[in-house]
Amino acid sequence: MLKVGILGGGQLGRMLLQAAANYLVETYVMENDPECPAAHLCHHFVQGDIRNYDDVYWFGKGLDALTIEIESVNEDALEKLEQEGVKIYPRPQALRTIKNKITQKEFYQSLQLPTAPFVITQHLEDVKAHEHFIPAVHKVGTGGYDGRGVQVIKTKDDLAKAFDAPGVLERMIPIRQEIAIIVAMNDQGETAFYPPVDMVFDPRLNLLDYQISPAELSDEVLWKAEAIALNVVKGLKSAGLFAVELFVDKNGEVLVNETAPRVHNSGHHTIEANYSSQFDMLWRIMLGYPLGNTDHILPAAIVNLLGADGYSGEAKYEGLEEVLQIDNAFVHLYGKKTTKPGRKMGHVTIVSKDKQDLVYKAHRIKNLIRIIS
Amino acid sequence: MLKVGILGGGQLGRMLLQAAANYLVETYVMENDPECPAAHLCHHFVQGDIRNYDDVYWFGKGLDALTIEIESVNEDALEKLEQEGVKIYPRPQALRTIKNKITQKEFYQSLQLPTAPFVITQHLEDVKAHEHFIPAVHKVGTGGYDGRGVQVIKTKDDLAKAFDAPGVLERMIPIRQEIAIIVAMNDQGETAFYPPVDMVFDPRLNLLDYQISPAELSDEVLWKAEAIALNVVKGLKSAGLFAVELFVDKNGEVLVNETAPRVHNSGHHTIEANYSSQFDMLWRIMLGYPLGNTDHILPAAIVNLLGADGYSGEAKYEGLEEVLQIDNAFVHLYGKKTTKPGRKMGHVTIVSKDKQDLVYKAHRIKNLIRIIS
Repeated sequence: MLKVGILGGGQLGRMLLQAAANYLVETYVMENDPECPAAHLCHHFVQGDIRNYDDVYWFGKGLDALTIEIESVNEDALEKLEQEGVKIYPRPQALRTIKNKITQKEFYQSLQLPTAPFVITQHLEDVKAHEHFIPAVHKVGTGGYDGRGVQVIKTKDDLAKAFDAPGVLERMIPIRQEIAIIVAMNDQGETAFYPPVDMVFDPRLNLLDYQISPAELSDEVLWKAEAIALNVVKGLKSAGLFAVELFVDKNGEVLVNETAPRVHNSGHHTIEANYSSQFDMLWRIMLGYPLGNTDHILPAAIVNLLGADGYSGEAKYEGLEEVLQIDNAFVHLYGKKTTKPGRKMGHVTIVSKDKQDLVYKAHRIKNLIRIIS
Repeated sequence: MLKVGILGGGQLGRMLLQAAANYLVETYVMENDPECPAAHLCHHFVQGDIRNYDDVYWFGKGLDALTIEIESVNEDALEKLEQEGVKIYPRPQALRTIKNKITQKEFYQSLQLPTAPFVITQHLEDVKAHEHFIPAVHKVGTGGYDGRGVQVIKTKDDLAKAFDAPGVLERMIPIRQEIAIIVAMNDQGETAFYPPVDMVFDPRLNLLDYQISPAELSDEVLWKAEAIALNVVKGLKSAGLFAVELFVDKNGEVLVNETAPRVHNSGHHTIEANYSSQFDMLWRIMLGYPLGNTDHILPAAIVNLLGADGYSGEAKYEGLEEVLQIDNAFVHLYGKKTTKPGRKMGHVTIVSKDKQDLVYKAHRIKNLIRIIS
């Protein structure tokens, strides 16, 4: 039985481990918090710091394969482990490219993939010198995650809010649609694409509202998007699972935005809505099984359940009962003991042949449920 | 967070725990073997004997709810725990009725439910005295499980093979179809039915070949079957999940065969093929959530993966790769280290709109996979 480790023990690890129990694999998790969402679902939990060289090295030593749940892991240790024969998904060099927003952007450029115009900035003064780039988004090179490390700069006054650290200043382009494509690649270089997901934003709050799969795209846009996603993954030269986020602009041009080299929030619906879920797929890759079938069984929507503003502390769930009564909704709570504003506490997947039903229920669920303390 | 225990750590516990991770619950498992399929998927594993009064009592003490994975648990301890306020699914009195094939059969009789004619026998001589009942099936009162404790008696010579222990001698009736209905009942007495499953037997081997859901039944037969299943569950006066196995005879009459007061092999397809799986449903009942939606998303078939004859020892899986390549097949391996002839090592669920496709692939999978040592 292969021994496979996961760096990080959050909800992605939790869902990976739910899927692992369909197969024959001995599972390991490393995370600082022994009460994290994934801790009790593995064969061996190791308390440790995934950013620490020694912790990661000793955790990975003797395992057959390793994967990550979050980018902020010690990639030097992963490189050493890879040299010693441990298979790493994604490969450390790919992780290194992606982890830094600067090298990630340069990587897209090196492949001549369409992406929003940008400049690399070293410090705050540098950003201020690029006033002509406004409206723009400033992204810090390393350390950003889940919305942190990104600053929208719409006016000259906003320039002062930019990061005083190396980063990317990216021109805001007028976009029609934001989509994500999950791509799987195995050790033999074979690939499989999931149907693209429409990431629908709340125009008022500028926050992800819900996600719908498959995205409504013309064939031409779909082909462009898939070609870019394939180029990204082939360019990274790494087996694993990748979520490629793309912009579709007003003219139907497709631009690559960002890539996550791991299972991703935009693929959670694949648990119920697709034959092989993103979690199942990553196990298939790591265990050397054939790639799974990415086709969808039914269209789906994902609603993220976030900690309500103004509440921090032990989590309480309002409206859960009503959501559990919805016929075609699947509730996933991550088991995090404490909530804080915006924290991802769970998600709900809705499946339906009828897209109107998906949108209606996505809104309904957002209004029904509230996570407070 | 509620604390819920499972007595037994086999595949049913494993799949229960996969489903538990969608909700907020602290899970406990008791089982003798610390390497059993469910041991690593719970918050707290307790090594112990589920047939031992003290082990079960001390395991259950302090938990909010308890369920079982197998009938052969110490029900005296469960009764004591119930008196002390632990919720038990199924209730100990219901378990006691079902656990003994004699009281189970008398229970059906007391409810005037149609069931095959039978006599209760105390010992081997008793069975021999009922020669006129042949062809018949002799079932030992207690201790039988998964095919063990059942002896088919077709001829006078077979009489000697009957059990020399209290049991039920049941007339073999000419049956057209064997079906199973899973019924959920919550603490409020609300019920939900899963679509019936067709249990298709191999006429040559007299072994369960595969299962298809929903079963092909006339409305009249369906109504009779549901009415009987409802009567069984209402008669047991217990919340929980119940699998009611029924015969449909040549005339379309429906007879109750046996009931399992727990999640059941005949409901494994509900993981992928129904909105709320049988495992999800039992958690909803135990956590006090609303009952789930039992509707099927797509028709499904289940193929059990059994240890091949002639092999005992560390399990090896032949043909797994080919099965994993089938587009609409979902593989579940239970992680049992050793195989023996007939041991349930896993199952494969196939989903498809097309019943021909289900049957074709069920046969194909049975021929592809072989579990040896």
